[in-house]
Amino acid sequence: MSLNSIFQYFVPKDKKIFFPLFEQAANNVVAMSNCLVEAVNSASPVTREELYKQIDKLENRGDEITHQIYLELGKNFITPFDREDIHSLATAIDDVADNIQGAANRMLLYRIDDLNDHIKKLCELIQQASIDLEKAIKELKDLRNVRNIADSCIRINSVENQADYVFDRAVADLFLYETDAIRLIKYKEILSVLETATDRCEDAANVMESILVKNA
Amino acid sequence: MSLNSIFQYFVPKDKKIFFPLFEQAANNVVAMSNCLVEAVNSASPVTREELYKQIDKLENRGDEITHQIYLELGKNFITPFDREDIHSLATAIDDVADNIQGAANRMLLYRIDDLNDHIKKLCELIQQASIDLEKAIKELKDLRNVRNIADSCIRINSVENQADYVFDRAVADLFLYETDAIRLIKYKEILSVLETATDRCEDAANVMESILVKNA
Amino acid sequence: MSLNSIFQYFVPKDKKIFFPLFEQAANNVVAMSNCLVEAVNSASPVTREELYKQIDKLENRGDEITHQIYLELGKNFITPFDREDIHSLATAIDDVADNIQGAANRMLLYRIDDLNDHIKKLCELIQQASIDLEKAIKELKDLRNVRNIADSCIRINSVENQADYVFDRAVADLFLYETDAIRLIKYKEILSVLETATDRCEDAANVMESILVKNA
Repeated sequence: MSLNSIFQYFVPKDKKIFFPLFEQAANNVVAMSNCLVEAVNSASPVTREELYKQIDKLENRGDEITHQIYLELGKNFITPFDREDIHSLATAIDDVADNIQGAANRMLLYRIDDLNDHIKKLCELIQQASIDLEKAIKELKDLRNVRNIADSCIRINSVENQADYVFDRAVADLFLYETDAIRLIKYKEILSVLETATDRCEDAANVMESILVKNA
Repeated sequence: MSLNSIFQYFVPKDKKIFFPLFEQAANNVVAMSNCLVEAVNSASPVTREELYKQIDKLENRGDEITHQIYLELGKNFITPFDREDIHSLATAIDDVADNIQGAANRMLLYRIDDLNDHIKKLCELIQQASIDLEKAIKELKDLRNVRNIADSCIRINSVENQADYVFDRAVADLFLYETDAIRLIKYKEILSVLETATDRCEDAANVMESILVKNA
Repeated sequence: MSLNSIFQYFVPKDKKIFFPLFEQAANNVVAMSNCLVEAVNSASPVTREELYKQIDKLENRGDEITHQIYLELGKNFITPFDREDIHSLATAIDDVADNIQGAANRMLLYRIDDLNDHIKKLCELIQQASIDLEKAIKELKDLRNVRNIADSCIRINSVENQADYVFDRAVADLFLYETDAIRLIKYKEILSVLETATDRCEDAANVMESILVKNA
């Protein structure tokens, strides 16, 4: 009897606890990324401001979900995956949300009105990675479609590479064409926070890959 | 017989090792935050410089305490709390100290003489969070006053939220009124390191909350 | 029979898996640091660009090795050291590589041609720390020369302190003498990434010290 089959007996109860929380957390990140893409593509400063505030609210909701996962982790002796993987996955998803909110917050605070193509492209990449994150999370609960999870993780890695490339190009452009140092600082910081959001998606994908390896 | 009651038999010895070290680490952070508040409220550059150097010395002392906790963790098979919680708590307290020292060091290095209200307010918030951190740490050793620990953690979270707010306002002001990009860079970095110190206090509070949940 | 002696029976197989991977990762970091030192001491922009591209390729190779270590960690129930130490050590070495590549990438992207003494000195310190990292890693597999590992770790710590000092001086100089804010931003960021590379070497040394303590 393998460790994994012993493990089956304990799973049902805690699956009911952890998986719905992870799905909520991933849904929430997708909702945030949708608001972000809508905001940076909107021509109206009023609409953008409303969407940034919506992102703020969703981030608070995400914090509550993460906190709930940590609490359950403290209370439950048996967990569907390694405790450290549950913790790392919850933290990675929370970090994606933090960085989306951090970008939105800075765009509002720094009064950024000229949302250039680099920024729009990074926001779309965040949205793509978030959608794949949500897909993979949904499949985690039964591990029947391991292939789908692996494919989502590979796509997230590819999105992160694209985001690195866009970020490097965007920063190179800033240093070439932006003569106002203060504007350069603002844009560079926003680009950096957006790029970090895709790094955190990749962190989540890495945790899921590690869960696959252990439970395959 | 619960795991917790079995656990009681093993506690005494290692309590004597870990708790005094954690109390020293927390005391040290409070001492650092006192120096910081005194420095930013002093009109004398000479006094400020002396206090910054004092912060430097205390940070070295803090490094030694952290190192000692890690060593004991390596040597002791039985620990009063989960090994990972002891490690995370020691790291979080060390990170608070690092950020206080980082802020002091930059204020000295960048020759910052105009310590504005935002900076003073953030230093006071760090001091408040440090005092609550020390209070909670002292209660950890017997867990008799769980309520007190939980209250300190809630206050630390509230301080961190206030620090976020002050930081955002301070940075928005910088971008609105500061026309010298180099001054803007200096102030923004100092504000950021101060705000990060309160984040690390919150990390410590989160670890303590997780310890409470597991040992309640 | 101590835990350690029980442990001997299990070691051979996984030693064959993990140690060669760690040695490859450390070799790779040394190769990267050699390219970096060569690049910053070269007068030819063409040579520098080639070396930066070489660093890029080596970083990709390093990513593959790290990924391999994580995969083996997922597959192997028995590991020669604590799983968390293997994970932390692999991550720390990967982070050294990331920061060397991050510095090279920025020097290329920001078109930095005036490689001053501070930058050269930091690159040499990274090279020194990388060489000691490789030495210590090679000794880890049999732990016969614990003294050598400990000495390498002490030297890495000393290098990190020197790098802090050089960084602080370099940034103070920038703020004193650099009047072009955009140049200041570029140099400050490169200095910061170089200094972080030595921090990550220290992280690796800390993990190795912790392994020594547990297995001494």
